[in-house]
Amino acid sequence: MTEFGWPTEGISYGGDYNPEQWPRHVWDEDVALMREAGVNLVSVGIFSWALLEPREGEYDFGWLDDVIGLLHANGIAVDLGTPTAAPPAWFYATYPQARVVTRDGTALGPGSRGMVSPSSPEYRAASARIAGELARRYADHPAVVMWHIHNEYGAPVGEDFSPASVAAFREWLRARYGSLDGLNAAWGTAFWGQVYGEWEHVGAPAATASTPNPAQRLDFARFTDDQLRACFVNERDAIRQHAAQPVTTNFMAHQSYNTDLWRWAREVDVVSDDHYLWSPDEDGHVGLALSADLTRSVARGKPWILMEHSTSAVNWQGHNIAKRPGEMHRNALTHLGRGADGILFFQWRASRSGAEKFHSAMLPHAGTGSRVFREVVDLGAKLGRLSEVRGSRVRADVAVLYDWESLWAQDLEWRPSDELGFRERVRAYYERLWRDGVTVDFAHPEDDLSGYRLVVAPSSYLLTQAAGKNLADYVAQGGTLLVSCFAGVVDEHDAVHEGGFGAPLRTALGLTVEEFLPVRPQHDVAVDLDGATVPTAAWSEHLVLDGAEVRGTYRGGPADGMPAITRHAHGEGQGWYVSTRLDVAALAPVLAAVYADAGVEPSGLPEGVEVVVRHGDAHDYVVAVNHRDEPVTLAVPGTDLLTGTEADQQHEIGAGEVAVLRTTARPQGGGR
Amino acid sequence: MTEFGWPTEGISYGGDYNPEQWPRHVWDEDVALMREAGVNLVSVGIFSWALLEPREGEYDFGWLDDVIGLLHANGIAVDLGTPTAAPPAWFYATYPQARVVTRDGTALGPGSRGMVSPSSPEYRAASARIAGELARRYADHPAVVMWHIHNEYGAPVGEDFSPASVAAFREWLRARYGSLDGLNAAWGTAFWGQVYGEWEHVGAPAATASTPNPAQRLDFARFTDDQLRACFVNERDAIRQHAAQPVTTNFMAHQSYNTDLWRWAREVDVVSDDHYLWSPDEDGHVGLALSADLTRSVARGKPWILMEHSTSAVNWQGHNIAKRPGEMHRNALTHLGRGADGILFFQWRASRSGAEKFHSAMLPHAGTGSRVFREVVDLGAKLGRLSEVRGSRVRADVAVLYDWESLWAQDLEWRPSDELGFRERVRAYYERLWRDGVTVDFAHPEDDLSGYRLVVAPSSYLLTQAAGKNLADYVAQGGTLLVSCFAGVVDEHDAVHEGGFGAPLRTALGLTVEEFLPVRPQHDVAVDLDGATVPTAAWSEHLVLDGAEVRGTYRGGPADGMPAITRHAHGEGQGWYVSTRLDVAALAPVLAAVYADAGVEPSGLPEGVEVVVRHGDAHDYVVAVNHRDEPVTLAVPGTDLLTGTEADQQHEIGAGEVAVLRTTARPQGGGR
Amino acid sequence: MTEFGWPTEGISYGGDYNPEQWPRHVWDEDVALMREAGVNLVSVGIFSWALLEPREGEYDFGWLDDVIGLLHANGIAVDLGTPTAAPPAWFYATYPQARVVTRDGTALGPGSRGMVSPSSPEYRAASARIAGELARRYADHPAVVMWHIHNEYGAPVGEDFSPASVAAFREWLRARYGSLDGLNAAWGTAFWGQVYGEWEHVGAPAATASTPNPAQRLDFARFTDDQLRACFVNERDAIRQHAAQPVTTNFMAHQSYNTDLWRWAREVDVVSDDHYLWSPDEDGHVGLALSADLTRSVARGKPWILMEHSTSAVNWQGHNIAKRPGEMHRNALTHLGRGADGILFFQWRASRSGAEKFHSAMLPHAGTGSRVFREVVDLGAKLGRLSEVRGSRVRADVAVLYDWESLWAQDLEWRPSDELGFRERVRAYYERLWRDGVTVDFAHPEDDLSGYRLVVAPSSYLLTQAAGKNLADYVAQGGTLLVSCFAGVVDEHDAVHEGGFGAPLRTALGLTVEEFLPVRPQHDVAVDLDGATVPTAAWSEHLVLDGAEVRGTYRGGPADGMPAITRHAHGEGQGWYVSTRLDVAALAPVLAAVYADAGVEPSGLPEGVEVVVRHGDAHDYVVAVNHRDEPVTLAVPGTDLLTGTEADQQHEIGAGEVAVLRTTARPQGGGR
Repeated sequence: MTEFGWPTEGISYGGDYNPEQWPRHVWDEDVALMREAGVNLVSVGIFSWALLEPREGEYDFGWLDDVIGLLHANGIAVDLGTPTAAPPAWFYATYPQARVVTRDGTALGPGSRGMVSPSSPEYRAASARIAGELARRYADHPAVVMWHIHNEYGAPVGEDFSPASVAAFREWLRARYGSLDGLNAAWGTAFWGQVYGEWEHVGAPAATASTPNPAQRLDFARFTDDQLRACFVNERDAIRQHAAQPVTTNFMAHQSYNTDLWRWAREVDVVSDDHYLWSPDEDGHVGLALSADLTRSVARGKPWILMEHSTSAVNWQGHNIAKRPGEMHRNALTHLGRGADGILFFQWRASRSGAEKFHSAMLPHAGTGSRVFREVVDLGAKLGRLSEVRGSRVRADVAVLYDWESLWAQDLEWRPSDELGFRERVRAYYERLWRDGVTVDFAHPEDDLSGYRLVVAPSSYLLTQAAGKNLADYVAQGGTLLVSCFAGVVDEHDAVHEGGFGAPLRTALGLTVEEFLPVRPQHDVAVDLDGATVPTAAWSEHLVLDGAEVRGTYRGGPADGMPAITRHAHGEGQGWYVSTRLDVAALAPVLAAVYADAGVEPSGLPEGVEVVVRHGDAHDYVVAVNHRDEPVTLAVPGTDLLTGTEADQQHEIGAGEVAVLRTTARPQGGGR
Repeated sequence: MTEFGWPTEGISYGGDYNPEQWPRHVWDEDVALMREAGVNLVSVGIFSWALLEPREGEYDFGWLDDVIGLLHANGIAVDLGTPTAAPPAWFYATYPQARVVTRDGTALGPGSRGMVSPSSPEYRAASARIAGELARRYADHPAVVMWHIHNEYGAPVGEDFSPASVAAFREWLRARYGSLDGLNAAWGTAFWGQVYGEWEHVGAPAATASTPNPAQRLDFARFTDDQLRACFVNERDAIRQHAAQPVTTNFMAHQSYNTDLWRWAREVDVVSDDHYLWSPDEDGHVGLALSADLTRSVARGKPWILMEHSTSAVNWQGHNIAKRPGEMHRNALTHLGRGADGILFFQWRASRSGAEKFHSAMLPHAGTGSRVFREVVDLGAKLGRLSEVRGSRVRADVAVLYDWESLWAQDLEWRPSDELGFRERVRAYYERLWRDGVTVDFAHPEDDLSGYRLVVAPSSYLLTQAAGKNLADYVAQGGTLLVSCFAGVVDEHDAVHEGGFGAPLRTALGLTVEEFLPVRPQHDVAVDLDGATVPTAAWSEHLVLDGAEVRGTYRGGPADGMPAITRHAHGEGQGWYVSTRLDVAALAPVLAAVYADAGVEPSGLPEGVEVVVRHGDAHDYVVAVNHRDEPVTLAVPGTDLLTGTEADQQHEIGAGEVAVLRTTARPQGGGR
Repeated sequence: MTEFGWPTEGISYGGDYNPEQWPRHVWDEDVALMREAGVNLVSVGIFSWALLEPREGEYDFGWLDDVIGLLHANGIAVDLGTPTAAPPAWFYATYPQARVVTRDGTALGPGSRGMVSPSSPEYRAASARIAGELARRYADHPAVVMWHIHNEYGAPVGEDFSPASVAAFREWLRARYGSLDGLNAAWGTAFWGQVYGEWEHVGAPAATASTPNPAQRLDFARFTDDQLRACFVNERDAIRQHAAQPVTTNFMAHQSYNTDLWRWAREVDVVSDDHYLWSPDEDGHVGLALSADLTRSVARGKPWILMEHSTSAVNWQGHNIAKRPGEMHRNALTHLGRGADGILFFQWRASRSGAEKFHSAMLPHAGTGSRVFREVVDLGAKLGRLSEVRGSRVRADVAVLYDWESLWAQDLEWRPSDELGFRERVRAYYERLWRDGVTVDFAHPEDDLSGYRLVVAPSSYLLTQAAGKNLADYVAQGGTLLVSCFAGVVDEHDAVHEGGFGAPLRTALGLTVEEFLPVRPQHDVAVDLDGATVPTAAWSEHLVLDGAEVRGTYRGGPADGMPAITRHAHGEGQGWYVSTRLDVAALAPVLAAVYADAGVEPSGLPEGVEVVVRHGDAHDYVVAVNHRDEPVTLAVPGTDLLTGTEADQQHEIGAGEVAVLRTTARPQGGGR
């Protein structure tokens, strides 16, 4: 794959810019204010299909020429969108068969945010055509530095039960399995008498009387991901016929459901991500850090772009909490600390109309006199001082396993308990590591893990035999592995492994699971560790040890007196297993013991002081974010790039403040 | 418009009468018992279409002739229904295209309470025909004193997504906007790429992948209201070709959703209303008073008819609370005190079969020996003593703004918080005024408000520039205005006002709103007033003062230390703003200060003693309802019409009792 | 009806066996392990249609021949399934019109557990054909001892709104009512104007704008039951043309919704039942006992087969609780104690694939070394010692009324309160009797009740005049009747009885109900009994006594001071009425007084010691299950068949243990 230069000088800064919502005179004000704010990159045209192609095959690029010209004249680069997330009303009217159909058979029409069926041949043709026309026209425009294909693939809809989708799924299955015998075996159709005798009888998992076949649903999730990605590739290749700028599309990291970002990241030239805080979560900045680390990890460590976040509240959650003064700076710099070389927002100017008028923007309804706009200008100035950070890399000693296939599988119906969720466990383990000041990468279970001291597997319900062997080898060669409950249960077809629950992990962990023992909500259950007792809930397991030593024991509940936490020495390393759902606080003593095994050092800083190091060719940069209500002192010699302050030994970071320290000394905590 | 005489001598009393559910011999018992109960008006034929027109175009009026004749012979007048809320099974079978279709595409069939599509040309024709046939036959019948068209328009269904509705909506839009450019601008279709290039592509806001265009939904709500009203006018005009009696249809006041009663009240000759207590609400009588005041207000002060209420429990709520002894009397007389000159029930005799057999009635399943029937007879006797009250009027010093368009707009998706509701705020402010013993009218924001000392705007999310100017003028000319939070946010197209949140109110209130700051549920927030601290929740705002003085300050939460309640002197008056969601108790000190500004005097009576005055040509009548568990003494000289008791200075009203006092002295509280 | 011999020697033991999910070599292991476990009966072929008839009209019985042959060679008998609960994919593809359609119009496709429309003529033909082919082939096979038709009729779907169903419903109604006048009267169509003038206009109660006609829904429930039963009879008769073995189908007792088991039990040769614990219920064994007694009762006392239960957790509840050691034995022996002569499980070997892979099995994923398999082997051994119990009968002094028609009717929309549920009340009264150690039968309200000392009616909302007379006669002849609230309200058409609420019970109870008085959740209400006060909630009634004496009085709530519990002497007996929703504890003093009236003796054992007697020709057998955490001593002389222990006077039963005592002495408690 071609290596592309970064699209802007220094750190990219800006947001989605939708000038078509405003009269021409506002554009001039916009670019003047963008300059004031230090904006150097905007995404244009993301929802403009109906304006660019007002009737099928008739194009109107004049206004876009003007906008791009105006931006260019003001030194602002353009990330040019293909507008294919917003098929025009004429497309829906001309090709009603292209509409997405829900599981229950309702066809979804226009008048909202898209989307039509990713399997529709008419949509594939039309989207490649508009993307190609744009590429032809703007291939050589000096302002256009990047292509932004579509928008948030998989949202707001992923799965589609239209006839086109069903037909494509059948072809996909035929390619995957070759024969009906293969499909019948993979799906276990002998159960409940679902054996297929003709390809034409195989369909999507639409409305049925009871629970659909889980392997069919899992394959439909894979198919959905593949179809969406095929739409991306379809447009990318259409652009490549004319244009050479790098291509991206905006991911949604930990909020991504329908897209397996390990696969997607291979197809883009630059990884970019959208992230929004979740209002009910008072510690939303932990989820933010998680998403940033996940984004960097799917990018395999390369710098990435935060394509969208918000200056303050969003509008699509039930009760949308606004950011408090300073919070946007902490958010933006956390992304940067975790590898983002671009900080962009949705959107430049708040829309007066439409479904998202209550979404905050760089320029809010309250105008330039507002707190938000002042902070936007201030952030632009700060980022301007961080140009040298661009291109530096984050390194981690710890990997957290993350696999969208396991997420899809665990979410299927009729699991032993609704109380165990893929994302909940990933967040809990991540948050423990975050509070301990340990920098992590995410990794796929079949990745080469040899570079990590510790591998944590919070949610590995689906785990292939190959992944199990990979983990066993990792341990044998000296790694420390920590696996959370309900792991290694099924294979790639959602079939229980031969050998029982956890069979692929038996070598690494020295145990298997005889039976799952969910705990009634009204029952008190705890785990006795060495000298400590921590509460637990919801879930326990009946373990059968095969070499592992007991490190924690259940007190109360259905597994009373049985092993809860184990450690297994295997080869040069050790495999830990936590068979219950510990919360973030209860995980602390467990992780402390695991760190000791692995040789991982927590930062030693107070909880809520977030420190990450970016390693550059000449310097290391410590990005420190103080989420606490009091100042903290950091023992790092160097220069604070944001303030210019230099200090020999230590820097004080005020309550709620951020520092970016250029240093050559190895900093406290925050990754190696 | 013609002025009609009142349909009965004295106060009207009765209910829905559905003799077709009973054999002929029961009818004789019915009329005898009606006479015992003092019934003088019954509504007949409301669901009788299938019996009156058993096959399309074939009529059978014989049984109705008999019923009306029997009633007439017994001195009972008839409010004759058009049965068009219950299209017959043959109508559904003959015209399947007339069925209502839900947003998700399900067509609603027969076998329940209607209704079919209000946009169906077949329905329009058939309903005008049966209404006309009835009018032709009974135009000159001396028993028939009023026409009761249809039943509760907008319930159980309002919005309809059938092809007929979509076609009608398109025509409605074409008439409203003239051009597609106008529509695209009004709907802000540039957002999310929804621009329309052909009228044929514009449709109803049916199932979409994400949130539909809010301006489209708001227009669809207006269209729905218009279509329902067109159905009413269609029947009314068909009746008018033959008959001269006054025409009504039963509203649902504060429960009305799909109908803008300000518009509907202009089309009827007599306003009538249905009201049912909401079981979960222990203070349901406050909501009752609100609905009665709203009904009188849309009637522009003219006497109205309580067309339906219940003698005891209803059946369609989850857990249906029966009325306790005396409660029905308090309910009925509260309606009368607030302007009703007719007190009717659903229904005369409890149905043995069907969906509402557990709905209470004047004659319950337990028969004439029951408590309920005894109270019905007693109420009839009491109303018989109140004939002279008929035609007297209620006057108020205070207006509460109420606008169905703002209700529709505020209910759309993706507002900043689900925690703010139109009806909740109206109820909270109303209840504060009710507990303070202040009589209010409701008014539309563009009404002439000059007659009021105080105008309260609890829920004015949508507020036009014209309404904003109206309110500013009102204040400038000496009025006191009290506005609650989240006001003046959008214009008639649900677009944020230029100038930011609250821009149309800037002149009257001396401020705008920079940002909405919803409060997390787990956070304690209060407002410091002069010497008092009251709790608040859910919502705060970042205000930018432009002349207003601070009267309350936030303690805690995202707006800690910022202004919460303000007062602005403008011209001869003052504009107050409450930027948070105070509950009924917390509103007390705020309203006390506002009353002082406005020169409004609370009644000074204990909370729960409800007093309203009806002003007649010769006398004033104090209607006093004691909701308390102990007696109260009222300093009003005069005669209690219900008991005949006269008193020089004061009347004692027993716990749970009602008095109607004829007085010439100005009474304590209860309006001017 | 033919009397059939029991299908196995001794107690039947085994489970569903689905060898088609496994390769051939596993079958040999299966039968070896079955022998180890004492298995003597397995159900085969329940979901095998697609394998037996891979294309329409083409059969493949070879593999089934092999399986049955292998089982036979190992002495294991076969309960041979007809696979008609799992129509093959080709059936759905060939006959799309046979799909079940939901109320909202969604057609349910394949890929799950069946089912298609029970009214589909194509399904009727195809299912009779495959059943007939199986019967022809295996009529004389010595291993095949019973036919197992279909699976759990009515689950996962019962009601069907397909065109075939609507047409069949119309014919069913025509047969039931003869004329439209009859139908209009029965359904009370005069209410809400639903009168039908043509048969073609009558349909199923599909999606409507408001609540459908309740009598129509009740008839649709009856029709659904009839159609499902017609499917059963259709297959049974097809089998009978070739084969003579007894026929069964597996019921679901108290979980059965769409099937009126009083009617179904008449059609089968052997009654069988499936039962699963409900995880949220910590006392699920009480519900188990209830279902077992209900199953025995619909079998009219004859021995029955527990066709399915689970060795440990199921998978289809939100949070699936595993059974603890010993719990499966207690469960299985409770079924046996209450009349089961066969103890089977779903399923033999846990499935690796499909929707139920997390359902426990006799041979779990953890294999033969697991706790569960050890307990399965142990249970087999125990049952082997109980052969002599087979055929003995349970007798009861108390009957609890149970009527599916009343369940259907009470579940319809718009009842006075959601807080009263049919099953909740049955369970509460049953649990009181269970805790008191009183053995009960269930009975239909129109059954001959003269053999019982006490009849309890916990949920008799729908009660015909004939049933009312039956109960009055029962009391007059010396019986004791205990009726719970909301009883005798409607007739067979869901029409309120003439004479008011409770009219059919007036003679037996000496009262009627004037009004229902639901209680607000926040209100404290109690009932004063003789010297005791018990709390109550949710519901009270205004009673009008007509001979009954007051035994309990309301304190607080809307019925404060009014009678709550009454007793009426009528003829030789007495009728008790409890007009409120007492919980299990509050029922204790009430039932104590009722027992005294009826001459019923509670067991006197501690709560949680469950004792039932099976009466044989030569011996009585006391089945004692100790659910407590401490041992209990039972004063029963005899031999414990499970251990061989003999004792002269008493047996100690350990905590969580079970004993089956052969005795000739009349035991303490547990039925006569």
